[in-house]
Amino acid sequence: MRAVDMIRKKRIGEEMTDAEIRFLVDGVVKGTIPDYQAAAWAMAVCFTGMTARETASLTMAMAESGDLVDLSGIRGVKVDKHSTGGVGDKTTLILAPLVASCGVPIAKMSGRGLGHTGGTIDKLESIAGFRTELSREEFFSQVNEIGAAVIGQSGNIAPADKKLYALRDVTGTVDSIPLIASSVMSKKIAAGADAILLDVKFGSGAFMKTAEDAIALAEAMVAIGTEVGRNTIAAITDMDQPLGRNIGNALEVREAIDVLRGEGPSDLRELCLALGSHMLVLGGKSAGEADARAMLEQAIASGAALRKLAQLIAAQGGDPAVAEQPELLPRAAAQVRVVSSRDGYVHGIDAEEIGVAAMRLGAGRAAKEDKIDFAVGLELVAKRGDRVGQGDTLAILHARADDETAASAREQVLAAYAIESEPPEATPLIHAVVSKDGVRR
Amino acid sequence: MRAVDMIRKKRIGEEMTDAEIRFLVDGVVKGTIPDYQAAAWAMAVCFTGMTARETASLTMAMAESGDLVDLSGIRGVKVDKHSTGGVGDKTTLILAPLVASCGVPIAKMSGRGLGHTGGTIDKLESIAGFRTELSREEFFSQVNEIGAAVIGQSGNIAPADKKLYALRDVTGTVDSIPLIASSVMSKKIAAGADAILLDVKFGSGAFMKTAEDAIALAEAMVAIGTEVGRNTIAAITDMDQPLGRNIGNALEVREAIDVLRGEGPSDLRELCLALGSHMLVLGGKSAGEADARAMLEQAIASGAALRKLAQLIAAQGGDPAVAEQPELLPRAAAQVRVVSSRDGYVHGIDAEEIGVAAMRLGAGRAAKEDKIDFAVGLELVAKRGDRVGQGDTLAILHARADDETAASAREQVLAAYAIESEPPEATPLIHAVVSKDGVRR
Repeated sequence: MRAVDMIRKKRIGEEMTDAEIRFLVDGVVKGTIPDYQAAAWAMAVCFTGMTARETASLTMAMAESGDLVDLSGIRGVKVDKHSTGGVGDKTTLILAPLVASCGVPIAKMSGRGLGHTGGTIDKLESIAGFRTELSREEFFSQVNEIGAAVIGQSGNIAPADKKLYALRDVTGTVDSIPLIASSVMSKKIAAGADAILLDVKFGSGAFMKTAEDAIALAEAMVAIGTEVGRNTIAAITDMDQPLGRNIGNALEVREAIDVLRGEGPSDLRELCLALGSHMLVLGGKSAGEADARAMLEQAIASGAALRKLAQLIAAQGGDPAVAEQPELLPRAAAQVRVVSSRDGYVHGIDAEEIGVAAMRLGAGRAAKEDKIDFAVGLELVAKRGDRVGQGDTLAILHARADDETAASAREQVLAAYAIESEPPEATPLIHAVVSKDGVRR
Repeated sequence: MRAVDMIRKKRIGEEMTDAEIRFLVDGVVKGTIPDYQAAAWAMAVCFTGMTARETASLTMAMAESGDLVDLSGIRGVKVDKHSTGGVGDKTTLILAPLVASCGVPIAKMSGRGLGHTGGTIDKLESIAGFRTELSREEFFSQVNEIGAAVIGQSGNIAPADKKLYALRDVTGTVDSIPLIASSVMSKKIAAGADAILLDVKFGSGAFMKTAEDAIALAEAMVAIGTEVGRNTIAAITDMDQPLGRNIGNALEVREAIDVLRGEGPSDLRELCLALGSHMLVLGGKSAGEADARAMLEQAIASGAALRKLAQLIAAQGGDPAVAEQPELLPRAAAQVRVVSSRDGYVHGIDAEEIGVAAMRLGAGRAAKEDKIDFAVGLELVAKRGDRVGQGDTLAILHARADDETAASAREQVLAAYAIESEPPEATPLIHAVVSKDGVRR
């Protein structure tokens, strides 16, 4: 087998055999296939696509390129959740305790963030003492004991994907539906979940710019899950503005606590109830979404969900008092208001710009070695659909004292707001749900 | 500027600026743009193409990436000739003395061959003593004195093309019309010609499989020439069988001498008269092709063309007696007949297979370090359109004594012949001529 023949095959849109895909993935990991051939292959795939069989085969080859986590030591149906990423997405912080409090075991391995804000792991580390590195035994016994654990991804999960993704990132070959789908699914499958819930975002702040593209990506991922025996459901959600109001690590933990208390912004709360319902169904704890939703609402109303968060924090070495007293979390020294320069309605908030502003304030990493400031970030006071007057507060920056970047971040946040004279049309947060039974809009 | 942005631009089919193309070519040469980015860019170009302006700009950037040969020290309009390659193509050996004998200066830099048979330089070196490395002064003064010189390409001609071509070769991105066109033209322009005649082959033995593809490539190259002020004409020629009868280095010199004597196979003779006519027109020595053709025929009939070859050989250190006594050239020890296994008409001779057979006999190089055996090769006795009976000689292998590869080469040559019951349709050798005035069929 020769890599150049596989490149030619994809260039003319022919289907690769499973053996060829294995050869390619193997070669990428071992370095026997040089990067320039992998890059040319990826670009050809961007143009000619891959069949469902090829995509599933690529997914499994990448999953099996490293450790395959065996979660069988944890009782119950393990449901994993994955979001295609978004600014202000703190759903894992909410869903882990919420869904666990309803009896579905959450054995979550999460990543750190590069860019914008930190990842789930960084956010959790804004709780003093919180340990995100547990041994496999600690991890398993914590899930069996309290129903949930969230740790940093360790070990060698899908190294082929890691290598290929890094290459795609610098060769303009990221946005290809089969390549994105197999990248996401390879990691989820390697991480050992029985069932997978996907939150596929679309809009200006997301990878997929339109609902149709997001549905196509979701269909590709659901097809992989079905092909390899992992029940998979995808929610297609709007990302024309950041999710919730708070962006930044401790700020997002605070907002997650608000939602678990039955408060917090409605978009975030609504998304968590919707995603959580699917997780309860996938986990076999509920027959239908309506039932599941009622269970989740009850867990919030009764305080069970918030108590589960406190348990989770305590089990991983943090101070559980944070759950009741979020003011214990780090707070930034300075608050800087961003005010509207005109009257009108908020039509959208460019999530990309908001994310970059948060990063510049210190909430994220521009490079892997950068240190995150847990306290900083920003709060979106006005969101899509809100009426604002000239001089009204749109957002509040949480910055370090005397931070010189605050002024330019303020400009950036102001520019991120699209304000128009007429109110925007209402759009549903969840646009569609994709499962093996098809697309439900 | 970032390479990844240029890749994305080509991926969505946008036009690159001249500055971006320079940046890319520069980066490829200096190594500041890694191979994987160049490969992804090339693959994107394979799908979305390039505009005429982009192609011209890429050509000039590659030409200017190394030495630009200044031929102004040679009097007259310097016309260069380039063939897109073909098995049995010895036209340079004929055209250099033939055209020079009509007064157009030929200052030809040629390559060595990799694969099949040697290049023009290897073929010339089958003449004992022939020097293909001359200093610039020797080269110029020889052309000024006798009107022709053929030397090996030296110096640093279009290194960007060299690097990019090597990369394209292993990434399935060779066959892209703008990339092929810019590759060919960058080298011709760097080599300093005032006018360029292209012989673009099509058919089973050529890069371009159809006449239409060959015309498209020719149009792209003529457009570049026009854009950068080099008068360029392309002949579109059939390559459904090797050119002439002889394949192999000394064998091809012998056949070239035959043509200069007014003999030799009709296809080769015809092609040389046609290409030579265009060269005389481009060189300003003749107003039209008919006139030019008459001049060439006269040069052959009078013996002037053959005398020019003898002069050329003498000037470069070889024995000029070879021109009159080709039997002085190296001869292989063994002649092995390939006989037809059936009655019928020759419909085609797979040039690729014939080339590989010649290489296995020792006429070409599989690797750069391989040494060529000048004497070996093969002679195609039967050509397209010929009627053959079972047991008739199709070809004669010229092999080393006791060469064990001869038996398998014989099988390969036999298999290369397509023999059918009915005679083939006649096809013209020259299918079309492309100039800045358009396509003439």
